[in-house]
Amino acid sequence: MTKTRKATHRRAQRDYRWEDVELLPYKEDGRALFKSITRQTLFADPELHGELRYFEVAPGGYSTLERHEHMHAVLILRGRGHCLVGNEVRRVETRDLVTVPAVTWHQFRATADEPLGFLCMVNATRDKPQLPSPEDLAELQADPAIAAFLQGE
Amino acid sequence: MTKTRKATHRRAQRDYRWEDVELLPYKEDGRALFKSITRQTLFADPELHGELRYFEVAPGGYSTLERHEHMHAVLILRGRGHCLVGNEVRRVETRDLVTVPAVTWHQFRATADEPLGFLCMVNATRDKPQLPSPEDLAELQADPAIAAFLQGE
Repeated sequence: MTKTRKATHRRAQRDYRWEDVELLPYKEDGRALFKSITRQTLFADPELHGELRYFEVAPGGYSTLERHEHMHAVLILRGRGHCLVGNEVRRVETRDLVTVPAVTWHQFRATADEPLGFLCMVNATRDKPQLPSPEDLAELQADPAIAAFLQGE
Repeated sequence: MTKTRKATHRRAQRDYRWEDVELLPYKEDGRALFKSITRQTLFADPELHGELRYFEVAPGGYSTLERHEHMHAVLILRGRGHCLVGNEVRRVETRDLVTVPAVTWHQFRATADEPLGFLCMVNATRDKPQLPSPEDLAELQADPAIAAFLQGE
């Protein structure tokens, strides 16, 4: 009766891991555009037009500072932290919703003392992220609130 | 810089509600195909190919017994309960993942003493659910485990 290609039911494991879901660490990055973040793809299937991923940023870490044509739909699943979306820095708490519009610089940062985990829904078909050029970074850092955010302050 | 049509950041409120997200109760149903369930659409946007909804079933309630061509990708966000997917009844716990394949009968049931809340990702473009005919119900109930599930046992 069921036509699953993968298990219908994948149990949650301790520490925000899941059965049959691979944990993908990011290599640490020389340009310091991200730090201490892992990714788990919870749902991706040829029949689904969206994908649901879980990202977890360790205490003091941050997601990649990037932008792209596709939109991000984020739900904070664990902990709290700050995010940059465009020119706005926001404090985010568990279960808050964050929409990242097209072509908008964004980054998520954990606090110093707990991990920040978030779900991110994206289109299955999407463009690759763009990383900031030195000029882009300088432009962002010209805003004192953004500069403080990028310094982790 | 940002081009949001809606607020970029919508805060979580108490009791699994969210800023700027409407709570849609389902009318109670004479055929008892669902009971005590609400829906909140967390993300739906012309640029997104998926939608993310939050359903909450009150203690003792259950979601609609239905099937459709589109796939469901479910993450249990709150509480625990049981689900029927095809001919399998499973106990589900917070953060478990459930995939509902195409054209597969499914229902989620809360326990008697706590709400069951779950996220459900679907394609933005999708077919309407089909409800079971008396014959479909009889076929499901022929399986003692499914009959017990449908009785809330």
